[in-house]
Amino acid sequence: MQATSHSLSISIDFDTIRAAHERIRAYIHRTPVMTSSRLDEASGASLFFKCENFQKIGAFKARGATNAVLALDGTTARRGVATHSSGNHGTAVARAAKLRGIPAHLVMPSNSAKVKIRAVESYGAHVVFCEPTEKAREEKCAEVIEKTGATLLHSFQNENVMAGQGTAAMELLEDVPDLDLVMCPVGGGGLLSGTAVAAKSMQPKIKVIAAEPENVDDAAQSFRAGKRIVTKKKFTIADGLRTNVGEPNFAIIQRYVDDIVTVSEEAIISAMRTIWETIKIIVEPSAAVPYAAIQEGKINISGKRVGIILTGGNVDLDALPWSCSRDR
Amino acid sequence: MQATSHSLSISIDFDTIRAAHERIRAYIHRTPVMTSSRLDEASGASLFFKCENFQKIGAFKARGATNAVLALDGTTARRGVATHSSGNHGTAVARAAKLRGIPAHLVMPSNSAKVKIRAVESYGAHVVFCEPTEKAREEKCAEVIEKTGATLLHSFQNENVMAGQGTAAMELLEDVPDLDLVMCPVGGGGLLSGTAVAAKSMQPKIKVIAAEPENVDDAAQSFRAGKRIVTKKKFTIADGLRTNVGEPNFAIIQRYVDDIVTVSEEAIISAMRTIWETIKIIVEPSAAVPYAAIQEGKINISGKRVGIILTGGNVDLDALPWSCSRDR
Repeated sequence: MQATSHSLSISIDFDTIRAAHERIRAYIHRTPVMTSSRLDEASGASLFFKCENFQKIGAFKARGATNAVLALDGTTARRGVATHSSGNHGTAVARAAKLRGIPAHLVMPSNSAKVKIRAVESYGAHVVFCEPTEKAREEKCAEVIEKTGATLLHSFQNENVMAGQGTAAMELLEDVPDLDLVMCPVGGGGLLSGTAVAAKSMQPKIKVIAAEPENVDDAAQSFRAGKRIVTKKKFTIADGLRTNVGEPNFAIIQRYVDDIVTVSEEAIISAMRTIWETIKIIVEPSAAVPYAAIQEGKINISGKRVGIILTGGNVDLDALPWSCSRDR
Repeated sequence: MQATSHSLSISIDFDTIRAAHERIRAYIHRTPVMTSSRLDEASGASLFFKCENFQKIGAFKARGATNAVLALDGTTARRGVATHSSGNHGTAVARAAKLRGIPAHLVMPSNSAKVKIRAVESYGAHVVFCEPTEKAREEKCAEVIEKTGATLLHSFQNENVMAGQGTAAMELLEDVPDLDLVMCPVGGGGLLSGTAVAAKSMQPKIKVIAAEPENVDDAAQSFRAGKRIVTKKKFTIADGLRTNVGEPNFAIIQRYVDDIVTVSEEAIISAMRTIWETIKIIVEPSAAVPYAAIQEGKINISGKRVGIILTGGNVDLDALPWSCSRDR
């Protein structure tokens, strides 16, 4: 993969995040910040939820992908873009490519959910199927790039993607400037690196804490060890967070992030349900991970003003984690 | 019941709605208006969703109940308030009474869902159980009133309740002044009467169209017949709309409402799911009834600017209408 070979040279600063916001603002939603007196009471703090579940394509990934596609020069753009993602990043790249009128090649595992394939195809993207392994995805993607000349848009090891993701925290702090703490989940670290740079640049005393499912706690392990640790993929219901943290992302995380806490699967499901029932909004499991850390008492936020990025709202309503249970 | 005996003298005008708004604005949310480019595309119109699912207690009912409780004079208020409702109005009365520091007596059927009983009790209301029939509810409520001197707050045959409910449409038209049409569901007609008076007062050329489940189509039948027709209660998943339209409400509906359309149960479930998946918000079945009429093609809104009041978001996540179905 192109991005990995010189990935340590990838970095961002607040200027690149501001430039990203200028570039994408006409093509994304400025999502609202919601509050809940009941959740404030339950947590003993003031919580500010940045609703990226209302974002275009239903997730913050629209920010990074749009920035990366719009930042390409004309000649490069015309050759198209490619990525391997069966999740929100794939849909976001497909949408951004359609906006710019360029081809998008999406490498997706052959066992992808039909609804995800349809979402990508609805934006006119070219879907290329591969075996459902990491290796097969990367090889197939390299093959497509070789054949078409398309540019790889990695879902987190990419400066423009990272900078784009940082615009969510930037908007949050513009709307609620006096936060003590900002929280987001961590998977590959695209959102977390962008969030940390934006938050610490705008408000140097702010704390940035990420939350991660304990089943896939490579980022927390890496953070404690002071070096990047790669773990085997395990199951978590927070499917957006199964990936290992990227090298350039971890470099930024080490420098700017104050802590990474882990949460159980049960806590994620419980937090997701609490958000649905209390705020009356749909969030996906990954989005509930930071609030799970609060609800599980993993961090002390008593009396604090806490911004939480609700990352997305794409869920399969036929397969909810509490479906078919009538025994509460 | 007190309210029924002289119910035809009950009416409202725009001044009473404005006064209601002044009275309650500090105690309710000014709920946001949401839009969706996907639903606009699907309907060929511009849709503006007034999100009363985000309202205090999760439904517009907070408006009318708060207005009715705050409008009582001091002596009357101290004797307390009473109502018979197992739904959102009951919770709204309990909350409003707590705000004012007066007793609330809630007559609820003995088979009420525990979560609803807990919600009411969490506001310190006094719950009185009765047999699950309309007659038993009214008798028990009369008995409580006789004993305590509490004031009956009927859930729709009450001027202050009607005026309070009208404040949702008032805010909607303040935020989006140039609507061609405003839609809401109809059950007892508290919301519809308030909505119609607010909308036609603020914008005389606007159309007001209500939607009703075809299983409980007494309001639509009454509207066509030009006189109030009472039907037997039947099942509808839109449980907030099972009641017959009230006399004073129907008088206003006859005068100001342009049409009442009916929708199937399947259309309600489909519309509810569409709103969850597309706007990423939780709405209860009753709230989905107007959009069901649009999705089912029951009204022609091509090219129009349409305001839709999403009435509430209180659902049992363990009993979703599409739960346990994996065969889509």
